[in-house]
Amino acid sequence: MPPVTPLFSTSPKTVNREIEHWMNNLNEVQSVINTVEPKLSAAPTKWKAVSQHVKEVSEELSQIFNKEDPHYDVIVAGVNAGRKWDSVQTEIAKTDNVRDRAMTRVRKYRDEIEVLRREYKEREKVRERYDHYRIKLDNLEKKGKDQPRIERNQQKLKDAEDAYHAVTAELIQKMENCWKKHVEIFAEASIALWHMQMRMIDEFSQTSEDVRPFVEDYLKNVKNTSFPSQDYIGDDSLAANHTQNPTAHNNDSTLDTSDLKRTLSANSTDASPTFEEKGKQGSAPETYPSTQSLSA
Amino acid sequence: MPPVTPLFSTSPKTVNREIEHWMNNLNEVQSVINTVEPKLSAAPTKWKAVSQHVKEVSEELSQIFNKEDPHYDVIVAGVNAGRKWDSVQTEIAKTDNVRDRAMTRVRKYRDEIEVLRREYKEREKVRERYDHYRIKLDNLEKKGKDQPRIERNQQKLKDAEDAYHAVTAELIQKMENCWKKHVEIFAEASIALWHMQMRMIDEFSQTSEDVRPFVEDYLKNVKNTSFPSQDYIGDDSLAANHTQNPTAHNNDSTLDTSDLKRTLSANSTDASPTFEEKGKQGSAPETYPSTQSLSA
Repeated sequence: MPPVTPLFSTSPKTVNREIEHWMNNLNEVQSVINTVEPKLSAAPTKWKAVSQHVKEVSEELSQIFNKEDPHYDVIVAGVNAGRKWDSVQTEIAKTDNVRDRAMTRVRKYRDEIEVLRREYKEREKVRERYDHYRIKLDNLEKKGKDQPRIERNQQKLKDAEDAYHAVTAELIQKMENCWKKHVEIFAEASIALWHMQMRMIDEFSQTSEDVRPFVEDYLKNVKNTSFPSQDYIGDDSLAANHTQNPTAHNNDSTLDTSDLKRTLSANSTDASPTFEEKGKQGSAPETYPSTQSLSA
Repeated sequence: MPPVTPLFSTSPKTVNREIEHWMNNLNEVQSVINTVEPKLSAAPTKWKAVSQHVKEVSEELSQIFNKEDPHYDVIVAGVNAGRKWDSVQTEIAKTDNVRDRAMTRVRKYRDEIEVLRREYKEREKVRERYDHYRIKLDNLEKKGKDQPRIERNQQKLKDAEDAYHAVTAELIQKMENCWKKHVEIFAEASIALWHMQMRMIDEFSQTSEDVRPFVEDYLKNVKNTSFPSQDYIGDDSLAANHTQNPTAHNNDSTLDTSDLKRTLSANSTDASPTFEEKGKQGSAPETYPSTQSLSA
């Protein structure tokens, strides 16, 4: 069938606003899919960058340490936790059925929209056939052609119009049904995104527990020694920061100087000197932990 | 004083192996500092990438949602948590006194090594002066010069030698003391690195709690419906994965089908259908949550 262009101003191309509406809606959905799908796919790489960075820095800091060095336990805890983060992250990135499932649904959904887009284009042929007979009959009538020929074309127009309406109604229904699915599929994608984040956070959090005692001990010593109450200075104060910071976990540790003794017997091996040493009382923040402890 | 080159094979340049040893050690330390310092400085950008990614994907998934849509609560919880992650991350990156303090110490330490490197180069002049009189005296004696001149130069050689030994001993002591500090300074850097990680994880974990109920509910429903016990298939099974996965937190939820009712009344608003709907029993994993629920 040759393409039919609107030949007369009285016979413009038939337009169905509803089908255009649903096609626009589906285009919006597909635009979201096109943005989100590659990002969901790349989600673990963001965590890879975190774990790799922490592993690298921890390892680099350990390079020139010896087993006998003070603070070797801190360094080793950091290296081990960094390595574990990295392997845990790799494991989660590799096996994530929730994400796989959500991604599969998103991709299938995109395919489904593509099928409807093809049907939408196919429908144009039916619309063109309808417009073709509409215009043709109009011409035949204007030119006063013989009745049998007009009647033959009236029947053809009726068939074309029925087909046009049937195809249009069916496609609208399909498009609407397809469009509605985005609510559930996008919700599932969001769940999958967060599920992965939570697995990462939960694992990272658990792994970090081996390093936490060292960090807390350090914070407590810094707080107790570097900021005698009379030197307490608002924002610039490390102690103030950690008191306000809900994550520091140095829950109201008292300023009792007996806390200066390292209390983490479990982590403190033999006689290694740790962050608390002589020469701290009243020392400026930047000179604590005292470097004098090492020149002894 | 002109540079003195070894003129005779019997008078080579004086070498002190100990000072070379400490200079090499300090070079090793500085090499670690040069690698670690920019990385420590860039540490928050890794978390920025995570939080920005999650925020972006959550927001993009919400773009064509309406308040009345089912699962709007999941989507909103994701968007809010993503935004909070991003702002929390920015806050931690901005104010981190522990990291600032460790970075300052690392940088000062690098400056200190640089000062010793300059002293090491300055010492060359003292060494050259010593070698100069050593060679000069050797020549005077070989040529049989007059005794007063030889004695005058013997005294000069003695002074130069004393200065050389004094400067060398002092510098060795300084270098050793400086080198030893790396243990404590690197331990503090590691603490600072992990302190930041823990703040991020703790905050992210806390923020995610608002999304967790939706994720857990989803996992429970998927487990209960998509994998009837008779269809349980090893590795390929989502249910198996979540049972093995310590982070999924679907602690042995029973297969009682009454669990299918959404139990999170706190999060479930009005009559929005959620992930559990009719048509799930025995359905294949890829068709659950049933899309039929939306075409009703």
